[in-house]
Amino acid sequence: SVNPDLASERQTASFSVEKLTTLLDGGVEQTRMRRMVVEAIESDPVFSRENQYFQTQNERYEAAVRKAVHLQKKMHEMGWTENGPEYKYIYRALSGDIAFLLHRIFMRSISVLGSDKQIAKWIPLATQHKLIGSYAQTELGHGTYLQGLETTAVFDAATQEFILNTPKISAMKWWPGDMGRSATHTVVFAQLYIHGKCYGIHPFIVQIRSLQDHSLCPGVTAGDIGPKMNFEHIDNGYLLLKNVRIPRENMLSKFCEVRPDGTYVRQGSQKINYFTMTTVRISLISDEVLTPLMKACTIAIRYSVVRRQSKLKPGEQEAKILDYQTQQEKLLPQLATAYAFHFINDYLQELLNRGYREIQRKNFDMLPELHALSSGFKAVITQHSTAGVEICLRACGGHGYSLLSGLPSLYTKILASCIYEGENTILLLQTARFLIKCFMAVSAGQPVPPSVTYLAAVKPGKCPAKNKVDFLSPDVYTEAYQHVAVRLISSTAAKLQDLIQSGVKKHDAWNHCTVQLVQAAKAHCHYIAVKNFAETVEKLETKAGIQKIMKHLCDLFALHGIFSNTGAFLHDGYTSAAQMDMVTASYLDLLAVIRKDAVPLVDAFDFTDKSLNSALGSYDGQVYQRLYEWAQKSPTNQMSPAYERYLKPLLHNTLSKL
Amino acid sequence: SVNPDLASERQTASFSVEKLTTLLDGGVEQTRMRRMVVEAIESDPVFSRENQYFQTQNERYEAAVRKAVHLQKKMHEMGWTENGPEYKYIYRALSGDIAFLLHRIFMRSISVLGSDKQIAKWIPLATQHKLIGSYAQTELGHGTYLQGLETTAVFDAATQEFILNTPKISAMKWWPGDMGRSATHTVVFAQLYIHGKCYGIHPFIVQIRSLQDHSLCPGVTAGDIGPKMNFEHIDNGYLLLKNVRIPRENMLSKFCEVRPDGTYVRQGSQKINYFTMTTVRISLISDEVLTPLMKACTIAIRYSVVRRQSKLKPGEQEAKILDYQTQQEKLLPQLATAYAFHFINDYLQELLNRGYREIQRKNFDMLPELHALSSGFKAVITQHSTAGVEICLRACGGHGYSLLSGLPSLYTKILASCIYEGENTILLLQTARFLIKCFMAVSAGQPVPPSVTYLAAVKPGKCPAKNKVDFLSPDVYTEAYQHVAVRLISSTAAKLQDLIQSGVKKHDAWNHCTVQLVQAAKAHCHYIAVKNFAETVEKLETKAGIQKIMKHLCDLFALHGIFSNTGAFLHDGYTSAAQMDMVTASYLDLLAVIRKDAVPLVDAFDFTDKSLNSALGSYDGQVYQRLYEWAQKSPTNQMSPAYERYLKPLLHNTLSKL
Repeated sequence: SVNPDLASERQTASFSVEKLTTLLDGGVEQTRMRRMVVEAIESDPVFSRENQYFQTQNERYEAAVRKAVHLQKKMHEMGWTENGPEYKYIYRALSGDIAFLLHRIFMRSISVLGSDKQIAKWIPLATQHKLIGSYAQTELGHGTYLQGLETTAVFDAATQEFILNTPKISAMKWWPGDMGRSATHTVVFAQLYIHGKCYGIHPFIVQIRSLQDHSLCPGVTAGDIGPKMNFEHIDNGYLLLKNVRIPRENMLSKFCEVRPDGTYVRQGSQKINYFTMTTVRISLISDEVLTPLMKACTIAIRYSVVRRQSKLKPGEQEAKILDYQTQQEKLLPQLATAYAFHFINDYLQELLNRGYREIQRKNFDMLPELHALSSGFKAVITQHSTAGVEICLRACGGHGYSLLSGLPSLYTKILASCIYEGENTILLLQTARFLIKCFMAVSAGQPVPPSVTYLAAVKPGKCPAKNKVDFLSPDVYTEAYQHVAVRLISSTAAKLQDLIQSGVKKHDAWNHCTVQLVQAAKAHCHYIAVKNFAETVEKLETKAGIQKIMKHLCDLFALHGIFSNTGAFLHDGYTSAAQMDMVTASYLDLLAVIRKDAVPLVDAFDFTDKSLNSALGSYDGQVYQRLYEWAQKSPTNQMSPAYERYLKPLLHNTLSKL
Repeated sequence: SVNPDLASERQTASFSVEKLTTLLDGGVEQTRMRRMVVEAIESDPVFSRENQYFQTQNERYEAAVRKAVHLQKKMHEMGWTENGPEYKYIYRALSGDIAFLLHRIFMRSISVLGSDKQIAKWIPLATQHKLIGSYAQTELGHGTYLQGLETTAVFDAATQEFILNTPKISAMKWWPGDMGRSATHTVVFAQLYIHGKCYGIHPFIVQIRSLQDHSLCPGVTAGDIGPKMNFEHIDNGYLLLKNVRIPRENMLSKFCEVRPDGTYVRQGSQKINYFTMTTVRISLISDEVLTPLMKACTIAIRYSVVRRQSKLKPGEQEAKILDYQTQQEKLLPQLATAYAFHFINDYLQELLNRGYREIQRKNFDMLPELHALSSGFKAVITQHSTAGVEICLRACGGHGYSLLSGLPSLYTKILASCIYEGENTILLLQTARFLIKCFMAVSAGQPVPPSVTYLAAVKPGKCPAKNKVDFLSPDVYTEAYQHVAVRLISSTAAKLQDLIQSGVKKHDAWNHCTVQLVQAAKAHCHYIAVKNFAETVEKLETKAGIQKIMKHLCDLFALHGIFSNTGAFLHDGYTSAAQMDMVTASYLDLLAVIRKDAVPLVDAFDFTDKSLNSALGSYDGQVYQRLYEWAQKSPTNQMSPAYERYLKPLLHNTLSKL
């Protein structure tokens, strides 16, 4: 039975929840397929996540391996393949809670970096799981800056081998997933030396564990890096190599080859490599970032209509906490953000597909823009979504702090996305470098990629809004965002120029501007996200109330951004103080409007109870019952030796006799 | 041996680290005593936290009980008492990692709420640990709003007993520490009924477990609420009561008594009760909030001079990451914040002491101001400090994400401080209510408490700064903060008045203004924090470079606040855009200045390696060695059954035979 406080929220939906779900999925067929996959996975007890919050790191790892192995069987049974349309739904249905994800990266790196011969040899072995692969790039002392890696691979012409070494502790491979306990092979990135000369970083296939008994190979020291904030199910590992010899053929040689005599040959274009990073950054947005944010919104909003606290009006019963303006102001902007990012993800996917088609035609022109957008949005989306999940957690008070709410795990996992696949500050500076370059080009009258042509349209101007309703016009707020982006990019470009012209060295000048460059990159992405949301709403069908509610969310997303960054809009007088008060008024009005549809808007994400795995967020809203039931199953409710050992002697005053 | 990259940072300190430590401790004698206590605790292996990051919730609980029991012995040996001057250092040295903290609250509640007779009976029992106490207020469905509690206590005149019941699941006691597994007694807050009439919430001493064998008493269901984001060492519990009878004498009766015939008698003033909450909120700031923030700063800043990444200048070696402006901009404001909050904590402590003296003279005049300041600062300090710890964690990249860095535990623990002892939003609204009242009083020419007299000084005016150096004048920035606080309080008061005058009901009007009321309360606290820091610096002795570096930190704290909230200062034109650019310039300049003293500034916090418990933050900066050593000890590096069960059959292609 559904909690009546939750049920009543669904009776007044202004739109068709099912229609919105279909829109989010991308069509009726996709919704059907997703539900079919979810049903198949969730009905299989091996994939259960029921006891997850009670398990140790060891138990989590073992369960992840069990699931990964079982998944092979399941996929075979169901007729699913790794390249089939179901695969993305499988991963999502498992909430990423399986082992061997790096095995896939191992295979992809061979496909991208290996010669045809290497692909023919290794990919079938990997596909049939005759080995378990990993990907060893990051070192204890080296992350983002790949040229700084210290592992060495010295070519020995006499034996036709490479000799791999970890010359010092900071050179130890550190973090690679699946490597701590599972992998038999890994792709090691190392500085290539031939006849004493360094040729820079290259990838090598190295066997690290016996295929017979899984013991470590000679010269290999490897293990697990220990406890982390999340990802307990993954055996992130360390790897120390001491004179480990591998055949010459194990250097991945699509782009570079070492001939038997030690001649180094470079071949083909490596530009495609950058495309791989771009692909990874865009692909993680959906599963690793948006899904957790949507789950957190679902949990917090359902809980906020079930939880009652204090009286809003004297004499009435205690109010649903979502009826408080402060609670709405915490949660509803996160909901709007989840929708905004869903649509920007569609935009990035489409751009990526277009880029891929161009690259296949040997046209690499789109790469810089794609790189800048994927870097900037990876940073902006992970950062806002992480903050959003934290807000959801805190908005649920004490119960949000219980692991049983599901929110702590969502938070500790999504937080990592700000760091992996490019640390956010570094990515934003890459976007900024592109923006500065484009701004210079535009100023010189040169053409620039489509997403930055707006830089040419520098108009001083003023915001034309006359009253608070004007701020519900997408033209008005989109132009305000554009204005701010242009101002921040142009003023930082000017500061950079001034510094250089005053004699500061280029790299120092850059460093002195980085705080502002980061702001400029964020403003650019924020503008594009707002513009894209507005354009998406414009194109939606007007039926079933979908366009209307999406328009509200788009307005809220845009006005929340202004309300939270008033200084950027007020700075040069584009927006006046009186207009800012109109923004605030419209923004607060919108909260009350969207609050009415809050539950249907999260219902449309269509998460099952099993996928939420939350005592607070279930579809029926039976929060207290579920918290109590789950708590009773906790291992902390088993008999503890603490009583006999410590409490009894303390209470019976026999401590001194111990 | 100290890592040379760290050692070099200490050689150029502009001030005496030892002198600053003494200043922070409050005197030479305090520093000596603190170090003596730390040494005594840390040299005792029972108190070791070495394996903490590897332990399960059960293991953490058992260790906390063991430590609490051992502490009794230790205190006896050392001649320390619970009321002695060493006690605060003991708790800090243990990092709060002991059981029976609620036992102290149990005792305090009896001391404050109990009659002399009750105190005489229960306090000796508790002191001698003939029972273990807890404090059962919060319920599954009820937190902040005490009047909403549902547990009932019905007086039975026939037997001279109260009959306690949990009428429904939301009325179950939930969260009380030490109650899940340890406590034998607890103070239960319940709705008192006499002859069918409800008299509201009252406290009752209830025995829940046998003193003989620790089994649950008849009618009592209790246990542990399960896994949480942190506080694994505490057995937060649940409690369900079914017709549990306790003698009439067990209602704590300093303020209210039920006579044998059922007559209800109210006596004395309950005002002192509010003072207790105030005391708790102020006392948690130092140990639960400032210490973790200072630890996080120490870890992240030491790591940031040891970690090198990318090249700042072509041809040079990789740069220390603290040399990047973006890294400085993440960490140094947190450091300044830690100092600012340390000094505001001194201010609050002093105010509290003064308030206590007044109350003893039966003068309760200071209570409203004390309540407003303690509520507002509890919220502001916990919020900024939690955000600060998260920034420190993220600024350490992947290694910050490892539990071995110590940062995840600091974060997950400090986060709870935003929720417990009054949820932050609710506290800020209480401060706002006080501010609005005072603003009205001031407008009517009535007197107000000292901390809000500035509300009378409403000057429209403009910021007088002419160049960026002017923004290093405390008068200039303090006045800017004051201006913003007055503007936000007065404009929200005006909005509230307008709504009410336009016919909106008072409670609705209040709810419509809460987002802005929260902003106003924050601005008030921020102003007081800046003003207090500036006044503190003014009073410091000018020797040993201390005043100079503290002045820099004060400037940074103030300008960081403006830089992060430019809209508030720009809104009514008090600060112009040109002035805001000066703020930005001065702010960025300050980062480079303070960066030089960053390590000495965290060294002054004087944390031992054991108290930091961090592979990244140790005094010698041997980060990589320590990460590797610790990882090898992780239970995840023990043999796992996963190989025989799953990996071997997979690799040997014998899965189908399973």
